[in-house]
Amino acid sequence: MTDTAPLDAILARIDDGADRSTERLLDLLRIPSISTDPAHADDCQDAADWLVAELGRIGFDASKRRTPGHPMVIAHAGEGDRHVLFYGHYDVQPVDPLSLWDRDPFDPAVEETAGGPVIRGRGASDDKGQLMTFVEACRAWMDVHGRLPCRVTILFEGEEESGSPSLVPFLQENAGKLTADVALICDTGLFDDRVPAIVTTLRGLLGEEVTVHGPDRDLHSGLYGGMARNPLRVLARVLAGLHDDAGRVQVPGFYDGVAEVEPEILEGWRALGFSEDGFLGSVGLSTPAGEEGRMGLEQLWSRPTAEINGVIGGYTGPGFKTVLPARASAKVSFRLVGGQDPHALRDAFRAWVRAQMPPDCRVEFAGHGASPASRMDPTHPVFAATRAALSEEWDMDAAFVGGGGSIPIAGHFQTHLGMQSVLAGFAKDDDQIHSPNEKYDLRSFHKGIRSWARVLAKLG
Amino acid sequence: MTDTAPLDAILARIDDGADRSTERLLDLLRIPSISTDPAHADDCQDAADWLVAELGRIGFDASKRRTPGHPMVIAHAGEGDRHVLFYGHYDVQPVDPLSLWDRDPFDPAVEETAGGPVIRGRGASDDKGQLMTFVEACRAWMDVHGRLPCRVTILFEGEEESGSPSLVPFLQENAGKLTADVALICDTGLFDDRVPAIVTTLRGLLGEEVTVHGPDRDLHSGLYGGMARNPLRVLARVLAGLHDDAGRVQVPGFYDGVAEVEPEILEGWRALGFSEDGFLGSVGLSTPAGEEGRMGLEQLWSRPTAEINGVIGGYTGPGFKTVLPARASAKVSFRLVGGQDPHALRDAFRAWVRAQMPPDCRVEFAGHGASPASRMDPTHPVFAATRAALSEEWDMDAAFVGGGGSIPIAGHFQTHLGMQSVLAGFAKDDDQIHSPNEKYDLRSFHKGIRSWARVLAKLG
Repeated sequence: MTDTAPLDAILARIDDGADRSTERLLDLLRIPSISTDPAHADDCQDAADWLVAELGRIGFDASKRRTPGHPMVIAHAGEGDRHVLFYGHYDVQPVDPLSLWDRDPFDPAVEETAGGPVIRGRGASDDKGQLMTFVEACRAWMDVHGRLPCRVTILFEGEEESGSPSLVPFLQENAGKLTADVALICDTGLFDDRVPAIVTTLRGLLGEEVTVHGPDRDLHSGLYGGMARNPLRVLARVLAGLHDDAGRVQVPGFYDGVAEVEPEILEGWRALGFSEDGFLGSVGLSTPAGEEGRMGLEQLWSRPTAEINGVIGGYTGPGFKTVLPARASAKVSFRLVGGQDPHALRDAFRAWVRAQMPPDCRVEFAGHGASPASRMDPTHPVFAATRAALSEEWDMDAAFVGGGGSIPIAGHFQTHLGMQSVLAGFAKDDDQIHSPNEKYDLRSFHKGIRSWARVLAKLG
Repeated sequence: MTDTAPLDAILARIDDGADRSTERLLDLLRIPSISTDPAHADDCQDAADWLVAELGRIGFDASKRRTPGHPMVIAHAGEGDRHVLFYGHYDVQPVDPLSLWDRDPFDPAVEETAGGPVIRGRGASDDKGQLMTFVEACRAWMDVHGRLPCRVTILFEGEEESGSPSLVPFLQENAGKLTADVALICDTGLFDDRVPAIVTTLRGLLGEEVTVHGPDRDLHSGLYGGMARNPLRVLARVLAGLHDDAGRVQVPGFYDGVAEVEPEILEGWRALGFSEDGFLGSVGLSTPAGEEGRMGLEQLWSRPTAEINGVIGGYTGPGFKTVLPARASAKVSFRLVGGQDPHALRDAFRAWVRAQMPPDCRVEFAGHGASPASRMDPTHPVFAATRAALSEEWDMDAAFVGGGGSIPIAGHFQTHLGMQSVLAGFAKDDDQIHSPNEKYDLRSFHKGIRSWARVLAKLG
């Protein structure tokens, strides 16, 4: 597009249709597509069907594609030499503890808050709200011009929140159709209320579930306590030993492949004026708890971590039960950076845990996902185009930032399809993704749609 | 009784009525009287009503007595100078994990096993089966002779498995009716298959529930991991620090009041020929895991312990969720011996935990029970009578043993009613009390009834 008149018409169309865009998102949010819970398998099918139908109405050639797990949605539209792949995921996190939600997580609504109107519900931000910004931008283009400005392929996954087991084989089998000039991924956030951001590094993720087995049944602590091995005590020692007093991870070889951030990049992060107090204060905390001697953004964006995500063992109901349990389990995840090898770390972690088992204890492992860290190449021209589009919409220079989360898809696109990814999104730190009362600012949704309309215009 | 003819008639009556005795026990086991779970409050009422009705049919003057919690059952029968109080509890432990039961825990039945017929169901051993041995012995006495050989008061409690909150006030208010020459308590076991036992020491119990609070909501470990405080990490460190490498408890002052066992008593325990391999082997273990340098029976009967009975925090469902939880909880219990003061230890434990809280963490405690250890005086004449009766029934000298469990009632009878307690019971180590598939040997039930009939004869 060499002049702005067509874009202005599209942006006006987006503004006029804002309420209907929101209604459609609410429709999608009503489908409880929790991928990690087998009880919701049909809901994942329903969410995929909903997207296929909606993309078809817009004018895409859309279809649901079977996988060994939840289905993929693939859609094609537009023509031309320039070809972009847009990726999002329609599956959502579990909702427990349900009692902490102020509304049914799958009965979403627009709520007025002190910070402005928000769309409240599971998946509002992660990732249904974000993926719908792109869908609605495409709809506006088609409505106004009857075509998209370039060739667009859409890939919506339904297993992102449960380790994406079907993703890599699917990419490999469908490389011909999916490979584009660049991938656009909308699963990240604004830097802050005012500043849009493009993520250029992402941490990898390794998940491990550890179960320590001891006696062959639950024992009474009066009859056996003091003489019988208690798996909860063994597990507590393993978990407590994950970090030293300075917050460094104690698994041997953990820091292999971890480089210090270049001073000029650290300088750029300092210049962002990130407020540790504000970031932690918004969730009831005050003091950075990571590795000693690292500034907050460094802890979040460039340092690997080990975290305990869940522990269960023994009697956990109301009241008391003096049991020595037969087993105890923990879910532990590692965020990886630089050249850390998730497969080597899995082996190292398992060996380290096994070596700590006392007599009569046996440990069992279940792996959940293993993705290395990703590093994008921001010299690719699409980064400049996206940065310019975002800067225009938000009237503020878009920042190149690190990402603390793990979006393995960017690495998979690089490895299996040879494609760079541009990660841009409109979520906010207080969206409470993966937590009760998840929300997406209505402003993020609306300006997100407008942002993608501008990006498409630059790419066309 | 100076001759044995009346006793022989009673024992014959017990043998003839064995099947009907079992049927009555099965009836009582069908009532899911889980005292710790408020959802089962009505079931506790039902169990009390069932006992009142049954004791009435036998000829007791029985009534249900209201408390702030679950009711007590009180019953009186017999006359004479000699007065015994029999104590048992009709409440049972929770049944989770239900999936590990081979049958509905509240659909009890007699099952044939390699070790002989057993009564399977929650409470079969602890304590419904045991209390029914005394009830059925009284029934046989009344059936044959129309009277009991001495004055008997029965007290059945419904809160033993949940800390007995109503017990002490009830004893104090009803001291006049409940105080007897001695208390008989049937909530302990045989020494082994052949040897009956009378327990002369019991460990005390202190229960604490610890909840560590961190951020004000669950956080995404990608967004916050490395910078935000994780309560599961803090809790794991506290729990791992409970013991040193030699198995000694690290709470300051924990061993105050703990004396070494007298050498002659230790010698007596050695002479019992206790098999550590057999005891641990029956539950899939091989190696004593208690304090170093202590023999197995010493670890069980004379040493205090700290055990983790339950831990929960974060995401514990199927699959994975990379959450940093807002809170994490543990249930910890201490078995106490000698002069350890449970109230002083509660304060010491809480102070020790509080001192470990890092910035941004707050700890909350809930107390569950606090009873000191008990030591009976085996020179009391009822001990000799009970020992003789048990030795006759089992054709093997009854042993005086220590008890690893905590039966605070014995201490309460001593403190509040000035009464010694004789603790004799017929449970076995493999009864799986507090665990799935609890059972009571049919032989224990039958010979238990006969044992009490003999004890009553000696006391008459």
